[in-house]
Amino acid sequence: METLRRPYAVSRCIYSEDDFAEDHVKIHRQHKTILDHVKEYLICNSKRAKNLGLSLLPVIGWMRIYQLRKWLLGDVVAGVSVGLVSVMQGLAFSLLASLPPSYGLYTAFFPMIVYFFLGTSRHISIGSFPVLSLMVGAVVTRLVPDHGPVANITGLDGLTMEQQRVIVASSVTFLMGLFQLAMGVLQVGFIVMYLSDTLVSGFTTAAAVHILVSQLKFVLGLEVPGFSGPLSIIYTLEKIFVQITKTNICDLVTSLVIMVVVFIVKEVNDRFKAKLLVPIPIEVIMTVIACGVSYGFNFEDNFQVVIVGEMVSGYESPIAPNVEVFRESAVEAFPIAVVGFAVAFSVAKVYSIKHDYTIDGNQELIAFGVSNMFGASFKSFAASTALSRTAIQESSGGKTQIAGLISAMMVMVVTLALGFLLEPLPRSVLGALVIVNLKGMLMQVKETPYLWKRDRPDCVVWVVTCLAAILLGLDLGLVVGLGVELLTVVFRIQFPRCSVLANIAGTDIYKDRKDYQCIYEPEGVKIFRMPSPIFFANIEFFTGKLVEAVGFDPLKVLRKRNKALRKIRKQLREGELLITDRGLEPTAYRKTAESEDESNMEDLDLPIDFKDLPIQVNWNSELPANICVPRVDIHSLVLDFSAVSFLDISALKGLKVIWKDFLRVDVEMYIVSCDAYILENLHNCQFFDNEIKTSMFFQTLHDAMLHVQQNHLKNDVQVKENFMYSILYSMLITVILIMSLQV
Amino acid sequence: METLRRPYAVSRCIYSEDDFAEDHVKIHRQHKTILDHVKEYLICNSKRAKNLGLSLLPVIGWMRIYQLRKWLLGDVVAGVSVGLVSVMQGLAFSLLASLPPSYGLYTAFFPMIVYFFLGTSRHISIGSFPVLSLMVGAVVTRLVPDHGPVANITGLDGLTMEQQRVIVASSVTFLMGLFQLAMGVLQVGFIVMYLSDTLVSGFTTAAAVHILVSQLKFVLGLEVPGFSGPLSIIYTLEKIFVQITKTNICDLVTSLVIMVVVFIVKEVNDRFKAKLLVPIPIEVIMTVIACGVSYGFNFEDNFQVVIVGEMVSGYESPIAPNVEVFRESAVEAFPIAVVGFAVAFSVAKVYSIKHDYTIDGNQELIAFGVSNMFGASFKSFAASTALSRTAIQESSGGKTQIAGLISAMMVMVVTLALGFLLEPLPRSVLGALVIVNLKGMLMQVKETPYLWKRDRPDCVVWVVTCLAAILLGLDLGLVVGLGVELLTVVFRIQFPRCSVLANIAGTDIYKDRKDYQCIYEPEGVKIFRMPSPIFFANIEFFTGKLVEAVGFDPLKVLRKRNKALRKIRKQLREGELLITDRGLEPTAYRKTAESEDESNMEDLDLPIDFKDLPIQVNWNSELPANICVPRVDIHSLVLDFSAVSFLDISALKGLKVIWKDFLRVDVEMYIVSCDAYILENLHNCQFFDNEIKTSMFFQTLHDAMLHVQQNHLKNDVQVKENFMYSILYSMLITVILIMSLQV
Repeated sequence: METLRRPYAVSRCIYSEDDFAEDHVKIHRQHKTILDHVKEYLICNSKRAKNLGLSLLPVIGWMRIYQLRKWLLGDVVAGVSVGLVSVMQGLAFSLLASLPPSYGLYTAFFPMIVYFFLGTSRHISIGSFPVLSLMVGAVVTRLVPDHGPVANITGLDGLTMEQQRVIVASSVTFLMGLFQLAMGVLQVGFIVMYLSDTLVSGFTTAAAVHILVSQLKFVLGLEVPGFSGPLSIIYTLEKIFVQITKTNICDLVTSLVIMVVVFIVKEVNDRFKAKLLVPIPIEVIMTVIACGVSYGFNFEDNFQVVIVGEMVSGYESPIAPNVEVFRESAVEAFPIAVVGFAVAFSVAKVYSIKHDYTIDGNQELIAFGVSNMFGASFKSFAASTALSRTAIQESSGGKTQIAGLISAMMVMVVTLALGFLLEPLPRSVLGALVIVNLKGMLMQVKETPYLWKRDRPDCVVWVVTCLAAILLGLDLGLVVGLGVELLTVVFRIQFPRCSVLANIAGTDIYKDRKDYQCIYEPEGVKIFRMPSPIFFANIEFFTGKLVEAVGFDPLKVLRKRNKALRKIRKQLREGELLITDRGLEPTAYRKTAESEDESNMEDLDLPIDFKDLPIQVNWNSELPANICVPRVDIHSLVLDFSAVSFLDISALKGLKVIWKDFLRVDVEMYIVSCDAYILENLHNCQFFDNEIKTSMFFQTLHDAMLHVQQNHLKNDVQVKENFMYSILYSMLITVILIMSLQV
Repeated sequence: METLRRPYAVSRCIYSEDDFAEDHVKIHRQHKTILDHVKEYLICNSKRAKNLGLSLLPVIGWMRIYQLRKWLLGDVVAGVSVGLVSVMQGLAFSLLASLPPSYGLYTAFFPMIVYFFLGTSRHISIGSFPVLSLMVGAVVTRLVPDHGPVANITGLDGLTMEQQRVIVASSVTFLMGLFQLAMGVLQVGFIVMYLSDTLVSGFTTAAAVHILVSQLKFVLGLEVPGFSGPLSIIYTLEKIFVQITKTNICDLVTSLVIMVVVFIVKEVNDRFKAKLLVPIPIEVIMTVIACGVSYGFNFEDNFQVVIVGEMVSGYESPIAPNVEVFRESAVEAFPIAVVGFAVAFSVAKVYSIKHDYTIDGNQELIAFGVSNMFGASFKSFAASTALSRTAIQESSGGKTQIAGLISAMMVMVVTLALGFLLEPLPRSVLGALVIVNLKGMLMQVKETPYLWKRDRPDCVVWVVTCLAAILLGLDLGLVVGLGVELLTVVFRIQFPRCSVLANIAGTDIYKDRKDYQCIYEPEGVKIFRMPSPIFFANIEFFTGKLVEAVGFDPLKVLRKRNKALRKIRKQLREGELLITDRGLEPTAYRKTAESEDESNMEDLDLPIDFKDLPIQVNWNSELPANICVPRVDIHSLVLDFSAVSFLDISALKGLKVIWKDFLRVDVEMYIVSCDAYILENLHNCQFFDNEIKTSMFFQTLHDAMLHVQQNHLKNDVQVKENFMYSILYSMLITVILIMSLQV
């Protein structure tokens, strides 16, 4: 953009925090306390009440702006398209939940009715979501396994396995809804922030693997008991491969044909998206054909194919959830609640940004919570949204949840009247349809090399989440993934790249001294930069790096000096040393034995005290031959705090200790570019005392360096030259500038 | 310190990153890859082999410098003092582990023997630690409860309850040692960093409460079964209060007398520390008296007091750990291993700093791992260190682990020959001694008001850890505490205080505009500061705050402009608008119906395209009456990245999106003070393209502001004045400076 160089001139006083505060009065701002926030939150007036009402029933908001003529047609078309898909997916996903297919139709109906009134998203399609169905299925097969004893729960006795499973599934769904409602009421919808894209991608990929494995038994026509708990996927695969020879060829062939056809047509749909008015509803077509063929050739009796079987016609009376199931499944229901909400919210957000309206996370939580609790009472299982259905609803013209309502009506028609038509459908067809839809989720694996190149920690999160979710199960995997994700954040700020800075000659810019050749490092000063917050987990790393950078440990130097002082005192007492004009000088007298006094280790850590000595010892000058202390070749240490975004109480303590240690070996320490908020915090925590003062804090690195150089000007000729040079240069530029501006 | 103000002058070019790179060539540094690190780690030569040997057997190192005449006496005295205490504590803490008292003597002997050779700390006293004993006890009572069925473990059948418990305890200890050894070999000793002081303080306070409750039954002489799992402390207390009327008065009186006496003498010891040669060994004295009294009055038969009873005399042959116990207790053994190591390491560190030698965390892990595995083979239980014993060892003159070895010998003597003397000791005495030693741990509660004032999140960590550890049990509490602690770190960087900066007139300093009165905010520019790293959990917070700060959402403005453009095009086509010299002007012609074209929502997000229009629309000037777009009153946006210590991949994506959005509504965005490492990362991630360039990155905020002001100089008279003023001022100061220096 710009290639012309422009000059730059600054001329002002050197500002320490004290000087700055003197010149520029800070406005005292009253920060709100927690109590104020609570009070504000609890204020009640008519306007707030009205807003609350509107936010609890978003349907009022969008119904008032509903443009009947322009939106209704789109909603109807979208509703019908989605309705067809809903029926298919409802049947297929109920297999994932280990439930009879017809309950999937309930899931596509009841939750939608409630969401219509409570939901803030106008585009998402409420209903079953494969990952959730699978997670519910894991609980169902754990509590009501295919073989073996049912969990010890009162209320399940005397029922068929299917009935037991339905009760378990609806109870888990109720509990999940309860969790969602509670989170909504407590306004903690923000927790989905912690589910980063990477985490969700790894998690859903693992879910796709689980779904694939769970559908294999339908595609191959095998009987495999449901496993649950860690490593269940391995056991399932083992069971499948053990009996692979018993594969039902009819199931396999039907599935393969359907998968290939659907896959190809979907690719065609994708490629000619622009030219096709509506994507070909290939899944519906294939289902109808499969139904017909299965009925015509009587697959069930001729080839022992497992079919959908008797559909529950109509609706059943509501049931109360089983509280004992709550207790057994609480640990699993919570991740289900979080995942269900997170998926729906992220999909809803995409469309709300696209269509420019706002959605409210906490209201969405309430909406999903109530939807699921309502649905669970009518035996439907966990509902969220599926990306595929939502995409269809939006792309076929859906503008509001009227479309969702119409799709629910479609499902109702099938449930009430047309269900029997689906009875001859082989379950393998449903399995094949589920599998062929996993492509997108499985293809997320392709992200990993990209992530590895760009951001290693993120890649680690992806891989760990995915592997953990595959091997340990989805709920535990999610917890592990979250833990690793939080750890990577801590890790990134825990081990930052510390550096020693030096001046780019002729400027006020300081850079890592290893990075540039023409860099000027003033003698006797070290500038240390810690580019991250300092807290309990890295305060030792920080002090370690600081000691490494300055080249000595101040505490050790202090101890050596104190030891030397003891020795000097003793030698003076015993006449081995004399005080002359040139300082300390040894005499000829020597005591034979010499033993170190180790009695008082604590004294060595005290500040050096010359009180009882007639002279002050200059530690860097020549000392008597038998006394040696390490040389300290710096007089000042400047810490660049510009990137320190917070200090916790451990960091504060550690910083204070090392600061005092440096002061005691006559090294002055300065902190520059400290955030105003941190400074306030330091005041609050009584960080400052008679040794550590605010005048040791400077506005910029250059302020501190100029202060240091001027304080030690006499010792350092080069600095003076440099400084003069800089001033002359400054004047020259100023003159040029003024001339150029006046031209 | 300094009150004299010194002047400050800088004069140089304005540096964007591009300009700076042109002037100052950066040295290309090859960063080590992971492979390089591994290679370096695996290099093997004779020196490394020798060092490895020495570091694996630290005993060689300190034995070579052992000063026999000066150190031996101290070691012997310390060894004898600690030996006496070891015996007492061994007996008392084995009650915590729900084991017969004599096994505590084994714990004070076997682990020490191994640690002597492998440990790097010269001062800590190896042996039982109350918290660990309690944690082992929790596993023991879970697997072998007082009443009810023993866990289904082969190898425990046909043994007495005590034998079963000893096997469980030693197996858990073996597994714990295995975990420690593994962590040491894998060099992951750094994980103790995550156990912050606050966390440890909250955790040990909770442990003290558990210990107190567990000893109540001995003090009161009641029979209470051991509970385990969450809320077990409540159940235990319930059981105790239910049968409080059955209290054994003899036990209670003995305990109270001992507690009062020990407490008072300990206070005296503390107060007259300087005057006393050795602290009064009141615990040993009271034990001896209690033994005598109990034997003399035959407490066991006369008052039904439970006494220590038969001591195992001598040692038993080693046993192999039970692998089934491993499986049952793996989840609990890991926290035991971590806590055991963390406590020992933190105590060892204190003394290593005091006595100026280095300890090696990973070698300590190996030492404790092997010690515990060795000890477990001889039926001792989890060993670590106790602060009290270590303090005695160091203060009574112990210099090396020779003292530890001597104390182990003392314990051996008691085990082999003098054990029978302790048999009449009432268990309530041991309980009373444990309780009276809890004072320090319980007093940590006093920290909380201090923490609340200084650092709220830290206080929350303390309280949550403590409550969770009390209510859920120590292992689960530790996990919960760790989770909360990591969350607070993330939380602190997640919701930082963003601010809009403005210039302190006459300087190059920029501060929060709300904080100062005399602050100059150039027109048309917003400076936004995000004082924390940006990552997946706060990128939305960041963009939200940015949009709030600038006062408009660039995407919405872009859409409105594109919509307006569509309208203008349409109106031009239909003759409702005309292009005149003054821009667009409406004609008299009006079409009646007006409908918005909503067909192509995606198009609205594209950059504004004036291609097919004969003129460019100036969005901030007067537009035709029926067309309105929001005014954008800034032309530049400067982001201060000085405190951004890392950007993850989500942040990168989000930043790029918002940057492009701003560019499309003609707002230039600049980033200043970006860390060199982040800049490198941006290059790696292909962040830059034909819209976002490195020339938009500036060295300092002032560089960017000068660049912006000069680019928009013509539009803004005040800026020019300000700039001239600054230059004149600069010249004046320069002249004064030169004069003052030459004087």
